Amino acid sequence: MTFSIQAMARAAKTASVQLANTDTLTKNKVLFEIAENLRTNVPPIIEANQLDLAAARENGLSDAMIDRLMIDANRIENIAQAVEHIASLADPVGMITNNDVRPNGLKIAKQRIPLGVIAMVYESRPNVTIDAAVLCFKAGNSVVLRGGKEALNSNKALAQCIHQALENNGLAKDVVSLVPDPDREIMNEMLTLSESIDLVIPRGGEGLIRFVTKNSQIPVIQHFKGVCHLYVDKHADLNKALPILLNGKVQRPGVCNSLETLVVHQDVAEKFLPMAATEFAKSGVKVHACQQSIGYFANADEATDLDYDAEYLALEIAVKVVKNFEQAVEHIQRFSSGHTEVIVSQDISATQEFVRRINSAVVMVNASSRFSDGGELGLGAEIGISTSKLHAYGPMGLESLTTEKFVVTGNGQIRG
Amino acid sequence: MTFSIQAMARAAKTASVQLANTDTLTKNKVLFEIAENLRTNVPPIIEANQLDLAAARENGLSDAMIDRLMIDANRIENIAQAVEHIASLADPVGMITNNDVRPNGLKIAKQRIPLGVIAMVYESRPNVTIDAAVLCFKAGNSVVLRGGKEALNSNKALAQCIHQALENNGLAKDVVSLVPDPDREIMNEMLTLSESIDLVIPRGGEGLIRFVTKNSQIPVIQHFKGVCHLYVDKHADLNKALPILLNGKVQRPGVCNSLETLVVHQDVAEKFLPMAATEFAKSGVKVHACQQSIGYFANADEATDLDYDAEYLALEIAVKVVKNFEQAVEHIQRFSSGHTEVIVSQDISATQEFVRRINSAVVMVNASSRFSDGGELGLGAEIGISTSKLHAYGPMGLESLTTEKFVVTGNGQIRG
Repeated sequence: MTFSIQAMARAAKTASVQLANTDTLTKNKVLFEIAENLRTNVPPIIEANQLDLAAARENGLSDAMIDRLMIDANRIENIAQAVEHIASLADPVGMITNNDVRPNGLKIAKQRIPLGVIAMVYESRPNVTIDAAVLCFKAGNSVVLRGGKEALNSNKALAQCIHQALENNGLAKDVVSLVPDPDREIMNEMLTLSESIDLVIPRGGEGLIRFVTKNSQIPVIQHFKGVCHLYVDKHADLNKALPILLNGKVQRPGVCNSLETLVVHQDVAEKFLPMAATEFAKSGVKVHACQQSIGYFANADEATDLDYDAEYLALEIAVKVVKNFEQAVEHIQRFSSGHTEVIVSQDISATQEFVRRINSAVVMVNASSRFSDGGELGLGAEIGISTSKLHAYGPMGLESLTTEKFVVTGNGQIRG
Repeated sequence: MTFSIQAMARAAKTASVQLANTDTLTKNKVLFEIAENLRTNVPPIIEANQLDLAAARENGLSDAMIDRLMIDANRIENIAQAVEHIASLADPVGMITNNDVRPNGLKIAKQRIPLGVIAMVYESRPNVTIDAAVLCFKAGNSVVLRGGKEALNSNKALAQCIHQALENNGLAKDVVSLVPDPDREIMNEMLTLSESIDLVIPRGGEGLIRFVTKNSQIPVIQHFKGVCHLYVDKHADLNKALPILLNGKVQRPGVCNSLETLVVHQDVAEKFLPMAATEFAKSGVKVHACQQSIGYFANADEATDLDYDAEYLALEIAVKVVKNFEQAVEHIQRFSSGHTEVIVSQDISATQEFVRRINSAVVMVNASSRFSDGGELGLGAEIGISTSKLHAYGPMGLESLTTEKFVVTGNGQIRG
């Protein structure tokens, strides 16, 4: 029998109706069993992963790719603990907000419900199979997982741990489905199934996200890139600015909430840039500097618009000196990717104005951009970071995987 | 010079940055001036409308279409009053929610901001030009209006009233743009401009909405149809059920929150269906009935799945008798369009179970489906009703035209 993505999506939809009405205790029981199944299945998971790794080496994948693909006992334990953490989070489903009574006595409330079916499209990291599935599950959604072909054996072994736990608790396996054939044609067909699938979340490189957005007839949550700015204001406390700069650029340069551009007010440039230059040299940060700042850095090259547009994801940074606050805001508005921007300033008017005028998903005052993360912002866990404004903007937790319905209670009212 | 939709959308984006920081007082002043301009420009607006009406008659448009297209002094006054009403509504922009302090002392809040640029795609009603523009404007968004070609002269005259008020208050005209050429190619190009346009809202028939959804690379708010159900439970107060049924079907059958299907529990069918039949006969409602109910109605035909799927928007109704509550839920889940469903019952367990299991945008207990409307639910005004779950679900007010950013305030914190 040939595989039908349409049948898989339809089955996921049917299963989502049952799941939407499954209580939190049952969902948590399933989550704890998934964690347990991961622990007891370490040998078969690693065995499956070895098949993927062998193929990856044969196909000449890069060391970085192979590292992303690799799972060992330690990584499995981390995944299991993440699942238990999600079990501990509050369930958004059923939450009631906005209670109101209308003049005619109608009671109006809004209540959180699951979205229905979520399709995850991702690349080589097999841990996404578990992470994404359990987040969608906790929020009451069915999920269709379409991972990369390099990780298919690993993903199957991981999905097995989920299916066991679902069946053991009387839930349909279709609540979590793994697309067994990573053919592009099948993905293209999946992206048209708007009757069955409510949301697509692509996780991976910009190419993947653009492809999904262009071809999807289903709403897509986009996270293109994080070109995060740090603006060091005229009234900045430079002893706060320096650690915030280094934490943002150096601590973990390969992630989307790391800094890519430093914007400095000209009044503090002379004092701050040498401090920055010393630290950059120590940490091996390559600098792309504007004309006004290039003299402060050894081995800097001149920054072009391409640099200000770049998400380096590496020990590289663009530097721009501005004449005034206004120019800083303009530069950020022009080059921002809508992810995270930081101001360091002691001046309350400047920080208020910055917060008012910068409409990135996360706007920070005197704190490191590295806090722009679902866990750090108190969402408990994160399914992704949206840089498009519809539905969710910024780090997305469980609540972003739900929507609200209106519940109206009357006593026989009719409209006049 | 040829018209460029790309240039128009880009200018709208630029103008949206200024508008996002325009305070509520200024926005309200503009709104009151728009209302005033509408009143003082009644003659030129009617003159422009006459051109559209003449062309419509020449092209043989139906009377219903011509009525939708027509504006007179009375309709202009109604539009002006609607604008003043929107001025009176609370401004969602700037609203702060979810204040939280993290263990490391970071203060986390969420703050409402405009979406940016909204494209409205609509058909022949010229009043949408003002309604949509002022709602988007009050929520701080630029809007690109793409109305039907039949209404182009009327739309230009109406847009003129807006532009005057914008310029008079130092705001860019690009805040509200009217596409001067309703060519399909131009609309297709517009639907790809995801760099400039944040949201597309189509208003019109199902064909238009499906076309926009299929071709848009920008998020779309969809409102396909309203197949609203009334379920009269075994424990219904039939003296409430009857007026709710009639109000839902007869008061204004041409709107999306009117009832299309009556589902009746078999234990009350014998008593309730004759009551319904008498009233249907009085009001001239045509009935499509299931086998069990067809005997109660004179001139009913037998209902098929097509009937249960139909949005009649007319004095027609489908009727279905069910054996039990479960069957009622199953019928509704199968045929629901996700708009509005009503239960009439005195039994608290039944109403709770109905609210829990029916995940339509609006779920009602003992009240008419006709209340499923932004104004009636307390949203103040309505830009549309979403039957897709992403971003907004159900009647959409001003808040649905905004999103939230995270505002994080620290005192030098960095991530460990």
